Amino acid sequence: MKDNVTKDEVTTEGANAAVLGKQEKERLARAALARLMEPQDSVGLALVHAVGAIDALGIATGELAAGPRLEQEISTLLSESGGQASWPGLTASKRRWAPRVPDLAPDRDLETMKRLGGRLIVPGDELWPEQLSDLGLQEPLCLWWRGHEQPLPSMRQTIALVGSRDSTSYGASVTGDLAYGLAQRGYCVVSGGAYGIDAHAHRGALRGGVANLPTIAVMAGGVDRFYPSGNDDLLRAVANQGAVISEVPPGSAPTRYRFLQRNRLIAALAAVTVVVEARWRSGALNTAHHAESIGRVVATVPGSIHSANSAGCHRLLRDGGAICVTDVGEIAELAGRNGEVTVSYKDSPAAPHDGLSLEDLILLDALPLRSASSVEKLTVVAGLSPDSVRAGLGRLGLLGLASSERGAWKRTKNA
Amino acid sequence: MKDNVTKDEVTTEGANAAVLGKQEKERLARAALARLMEPQDSVGLALVHAVGAIDALGIATGELAAGPRLEQEISTLLSESGGQASWPGLTASKRRWAPRVPDLAPDRDLETMKRLGGRLIVPGDELWPEQLSDLGLQEPLCLWWRGHEQPLPSMRQTIALVGSRDSTSYGASVTGDLAYGLAQRGYCVVSGGAYGIDAHAHRGALRGGVANLPTIAVMAGGVDRFYPSGNDDLLRAVANQGAVISEVPPGSAPTRYRFLQRNRLIAALAAVTVVVEARWRSGALNTAHHAESIGRVVATVPGSIHSANSAGCHRLLRDGGAICVTDVGEIAELAGRNGEVTVSYKDSPAAPHDGLSLEDLILLDALPLRSASSVEKLTVVAGLSPDSVRAGLGRLGLLGLASSERGAWKRTKNA
Repeated sequence: MKDNVTKDEVTTEGANAAVLGKQEKERLARAALARLMEPQDSVGLALVHAVGAIDALGIATGELAAGPRLEQEISTLLSESGGQASWPGLTASKRRWAPRVPDLAPDRDLETMKRLGGRLIVPGDELWPEQLSDLGLQEPLCLWWRGHEQPLPSMRQTIALVGSRDSTSYGASVTGDLAYGLAQRGYCVVSGGAYGIDAHAHRGALRGGVANLPTIAVMAGGVDRFYPSGNDDLLRAVANQGAVISEVPPGSAPTRYRFLQRNRLIAALAAVTVVVEARWRSGALNTAHHAESIGRVVATVPGSIHSANSAGCHRLLRDGGAICVTDVGEIAELAGRNGEVTVSYKDSPAAPHDGLSLEDLILLDALPLRSASSVEKLTVVAGLSPDSVRAGLGRLGLLGLASSERGAWKRTKNA
Repeated sequence: MKDNVTKDEVTTEGANAAVLGKQEKERLARAALARLMEPQDSVGLALVHAVGAIDALGIATGELAAGPRLEQEISTLLSESGGQASWPGLTASKRRWAPRVPDLAPDRDLETMKRLGGRLIVPGDELWPEQLSDLGLQEPLCLWWRGHEQPLPSMRQTIALVGSRDSTSYGASVTGDLAYGLAQRGYCVVSGGAYGIDAHAHRGALRGGVANLPTIAVMAGGVDRFYPSGNDDLLRAVANQGAVISEVPPGSAPTRYRFLQRNRLIAALAAVTVVVEARWRSGALNTAHHAESIGRVVATVPGSIHSANSAGCHRLLRDGGAICVTDVGEIAELAGRNGEVTVSYKDSPAAPHDGLSLEDLILLDALPLRSASSVEKLTVVAGLSPDSVRAGLGRLGLLGLASSERGAWKRTKNA
């Protein structure tokens, strides 16, 4: 019996080691693929979906052969994900990847991350932010993560604050206030680490932070180098208190293409993407577009119509997709954390029911907001005669303060 | 034969006189009813709908008797118009009207209007603004009109600019600019003649006016007295160049109830109601509510989230009903005068297609905006190989700049 138990234990350990070995291989393969392929290389990502990262690396590097059935499978994946239906085939992609094959050294990259106090996470890891799977085929291969090891916040706990690099003093103060307030409520503020709105977002969140991870900077280049260099101190603080992440390996330059792809990660990490300040044409609108395309809420902060830096925000409002937000409570409400929502009534100098007679005001107060009430019941609640109640309801109805359903009355929302 | 002709002529003249007599009687009756009943007296308006103004006046003053069938008809009209289903009956209404019967002197009121260089118009008159019929049962009995006799503008030619009395310098300049620009394009700017946003709206329209009737002030009280008195000069100018109108007869005080009812006229006259500046609770929101309830477009101008005077505008944006507008072109577009629409591109320092390769930029330029184009056709237009076109389309697709439908491609709106 004892022998058996020992044998079982050994077998389990062996299996665990095998599993661990496979996970490690998978991680190394994804690290290598991340260097081989640009972000959102759709053929490459489809290849990984079809055969797994390890075999995908083998095919990409030419160590494994790929048959026509695989090409068919990739075609199907591409068209299912809304991408191109026809593509030039794996040979063309391999031609694109080939120049980088000699540079592959995933072990070295992982070593670099360790040295920086970071790590590489891949889908399936416990620490992997599951909201990224909403990107479908465009989910990143892996994330290079600089910062303390701790659970990344869930989508509902995360708000993206984005905007132009050339922020105005208005944009700076609004972003700072929102980021501080969100962090105070326990939200994680995600942004892009750039100058302007991004920097104010990270800074405000670091100041307000009460949660473990008040802010995340998603980089377009490698996390080994803080970019832009003027934000070096800020991004160092973000890495210390929060997280600095990227889908491209250490040493990668932040190209314009990578900036645009990076935006989809910001959008996917957060429940709400708030564009605080943006010109008529701005990269922040690209983030908003990504957010909308995967069903995330897009919000924007209004500003003066004389400010070119708010023109992009107003464009988002006018074109329909974005919701107007003016404070932390409204953003939190959009994030669906209803428990923490505080409806803000900024000022109440004049009410829509100003000018009502005393009787009608009494009647208005007697009207329920949810379920409608009968005239009989209202006479009791308000202490008015049935005639006065009916006449009063008519007046309140005409004023848009009360509405009736099959003879029963309730207060309208704006009363 | 000659006799016959003469007889015919006499008969026609007699009939004309009879028609004229009836029209005049109807006008006098409505003038009297306007004094008897408050604006939007739903029972009174239903009564007029049921039996006409002349008999309604007879019933209201007690000269004519009303049977139970009439009460039934009024009930039906009231419930059909979304008002109260039960009401205290005509006797109660007559009790409400009775105190004013001794004061009735419609001839004197019409004489007053003549003396003021004005007139009374009633539904059916050639000069009656037909868009007011969208108010249904709540269409006013008549309009007391001070100003030159000229056609009132159609709904599509009319824009309402409304807002708070305590406007900021931002609100003042924005309102002035919008009103001036709208008047320059031939629109009539309607507002309420109050201090603040209203006054800036009238003033801007008078300055910019190229049309016959650049602005209309809708008063809550009688048009014999310009209210508020501080706007006396302005309203006199509005009466001279535009029109000052009201549904209540000369001598009527501008009560709060009448202010709220007046707002429905502003909303109904205009194709678009633009709230330029409004506090969280503001009468301007009441106008917006009226506009929405009769299917008119509600628009609002964004402002600083630090300004309490824009909080009502942002509330309108957030609650969904209002469209964000930032210039005259956007308002004109909403009014449906597409011929005059100029899409405004404020600044274009950075485009969403920045960072594309030269080939992809060429491809993007080759993509049609409306009907989709085949890959074959694109190779010709762009001068690229089929492979390059397909690969480029994939990249543009992932960037959200191009989209495909059954193998054919077009540029997306924001590309």
